[in-house]
Amino acid sequence: MSFEVLQDKIRRMKNPTVAGLDARVEYVPAFILDKYIAQYGETRRAAAEAIYEFDCGLMDALQDVVPAVKPQAAYFEMLGWEGMEVLERVIRYAKEKGFYVIADVKRGDIGTTATAYAEGWLGGVQVGNTLCTGFDADSVTLNGYMGSDAIKPFLKECQQRNKTLFVLVHTSNASSLELQDMVCGDRLVYTVMGDLTSRWGGSEELDRYGYNRVGAVMGATYPSDIRRMREQLPHTFFLVPGYGAQGGTAADVRYAFDRYGHGAIVNSSRGIMCAWKKTGGDGTDYQEAARAAAIAMRDDIAAYTTVI
Amino acid sequence: MSFEVLQDKIRRMKNPTVAGLDARVEYVPAFILDKYIAQYGETRRAAAEAIYEFDCGLMDALQDVVPAVKPQAAYFEMLGWEGMEVLERVIRYAKEKGFYVIADVKRGDIGTTATAYAEGWLGGVQVGNTLCTGFDADSVTLNGYMGSDAIKPFLKECQQRNKTLFVLVHTSNASSLELQDMVCGDRLVYTVMGDLTSRWGGSEELDRYGYNRVGAVMGATYPSDIRRMREQLPHTFFLVPGYGAQGGTAADVRYAFDRYGHGAIVNSSRGIMCAWKKTGGDGTDYQEAARAAAIAMRDDIAAYTTVI
Repeated sequence: MSFEVLQDKIRRMKNPTVAGLDARVEYVPAFILDKYIAQYGETRRAAAEAIYEFDCGLMDALQDVVPAVKPQAAYFEMLGWEGMEVLERVIRYAKEKGFYVIADVKRGDIGTTATAYAEGWLGGVQVGNTLCTGFDADSVTLNGYMGSDAIKPFLKECQQRNKTLFVLVHTSNASSLELQDMVCGDRLVYTVMGDLTSRWGGSEELDRYGYNRVGAVMGATYPSDIRRMREQLPHTFFLVPGYGAQGGTAADVRYAFDRYGHGAIVNSSRGIMCAWKKTGGDGTDYQEAARAAAIAMRDDIAAYTTVI
Repeated sequence: MSFEVLQDKIRRMKNPTVAGLDARVEYVPAFILDKYIAQYGETRRAAAEAIYEFDCGLMDALQDVVPAVKPQAAYFEMLGWEGMEVLERVIRYAKEKGFYVIADVKRGDIGTTATAYAEGWLGGVQVGNTLCTGFDADSVTLNGYMGSDAIKPFLKECQQRNKTLFVLVHTSNASSLELQDMVCGDRLVYTVMGDLTSRWGGSEELDRYGYNRVGAVMGATYPSDIRRMREQLPHTFFLVPGYGAQGGTAADVRYAFDRYGHGAIVNSSRGIMCAWKKTGGDGTDYQEAARAAAIAMRDDIAAYTTVI
C-alpha cells in the first residue's frame, strides 16, 4: 500500500511513529520463553515461538496507538528457517490488525537477484500457473550502494501492487560518517544517495499528500541534515530511526516532517519492546509497559510536531 | 574457515572459481520441477524442493572440479520460509561435499542487528544453555554503506569461528558507478570502501598466503580498477563476480590475483547453472552441461592465471 495509506493511518491515530519488532531472545520476558522451552526444549523453534507470542502481544497492546510496525529480518533470520516461518506469521498478524508493515531487510542486489528479493518481500513467485506470495510486506528498506540496478526491480513490484520502499540515505549510527559523509564535489555521499532516491521516486505519480513511492531512511541523530534533506527532497517520505536509545529527540525529528506534519514516520524499537525491563516487574506487564511507552513517545513528538 | 582453507582447496583443484547457486524456478529443468509439482502442487514447497534437487545435482557434478559454492539468499527468500529451510539443507549438503560455502546475503545493518545477522549466518543464538546454530556458512558477503558498525559484529564471529566475510567494494553491474565512482577528493567512493575493508581486516593476523579475514567484492567488469585495487589492498582476498554473462573475461579477471595466482576467486552463476539450456536437450543433461561449463571456465582462466 502506498504512503498515502500509511499517512491516512498516521492521521487517524495522530501518531507518526512505527514500532520496531526487533526481539532478541533476551528481550522476551522469561514467562513466555520458559513456556516454549518446556514445550520444544532449548531450540530455535522454542525461541521463534516465544518471539511470535511476544510480537503479537505487543501488537495487541499497540493496535489503537501505533499505525505501523517494522519487523527487522535479522532477528528472525538468526533463528534459521523457523525464525523466517514465524516472520511470515508476524507479518500476517500485523496486517490483520491493521498495521502498515515495513519489512526492515536492507536488501541490496542487482538484476534478477533484486527481482527475486522483490518477489520474496513484496510480490510473489510464479510456480506453474500459480502466483505464490512470499513475506508480502507493505514496504521494505533497501540499500542503494549498487545503484539503480538494486532499486528498479522493487519499484516495478511497488507500482504493480501499490507498495513502497525506503532507501538508506543517512543512517543514525555513529560510523555512518565513514562513507556517507565523504565530500564529493559540492555534495556528500548521502546527499548523492538522496538525489538518486528522489530520482527513483520521480514526481509524476504523487499521492494525495505529495509523496512518491520511494522513501528515504534519515537518521534522527543528525537533525540539521534531516532539515536540509527535507527541503531538498520534497516528495520523499522519511523513515526516521535513532529516536530514543540512539539519542535522537522529538526536537530533532521534527525537521523530518513537512509543514502539515506529514511525510515522515519515526521508529522506536527497544524503547517500546523493552519498556517492561524498566518497570521493576518480571515482564508479565510487558504489554502495559509497551503501550505506555508508545503513548509517551506519541505525546513527546506531538509537543513539537502537529499532524494535521 | 579462513581464506587459507579456501586457498588450499583452490590449489588442490587448480581452479580459483566458485559456482553460484542462484536458481530461479525457470532455471530448473522441467523434469525436476514437474515431479515436485505432482507431489506438492503449484506451491512454494514444490519450487523449493525442485531447487534443492537441482542445487544438489549441480554440486554432485562439480565436487571434484569447483572448490566453492555461493548460494544467493534471494533465490531462497523468494520462496518464503520453505525456501529458507531448503537453503539450510543446501549449505549442509555443500559442506558435506567439501565445498567452501559463501552465503551471498549482502547484509548490512548495525549494532545488535548486525550481531543477529552474524549469529544467523556464521554463528549461533543462545537459547537457554544451548547454542543453536543458524545457516552456518563459511563466509558471507556484506554491504558497508553504514560503516564499521555494519562489519565489526561479523568480524567478531569470524575470529571466534575461523570464518571470513566479503565487503562490497566495486560491484560488477552497470549502475555501480552512480555512487561507487563518485570522486571524493583524491579518492573514489569505492576506493574509500576498499580502504575501510583493508582496515577492518588489518595486517596483524594474516594467513599463510598473506591474507586477512575481510575480503572484498571486486567486479570483473572494470579490469583496470581491479588491477589498482590489487596493488592497494595486498592482504584483501577478492571475490570477483561478473565473469561470463555480465561481460567479464579471463583476461580481465587475471588482475585480481597476486603473482602466485592466489588471493581471488571468480564467480560464475548462470554460465554453469543454465549451461543445459544451450545443449539443445530437455535438461536431463544438466549435470554434464554444468560440469563441462565449469571445466571450460577453469581452463579459460588458467590460460591467463596460474595458481601455484
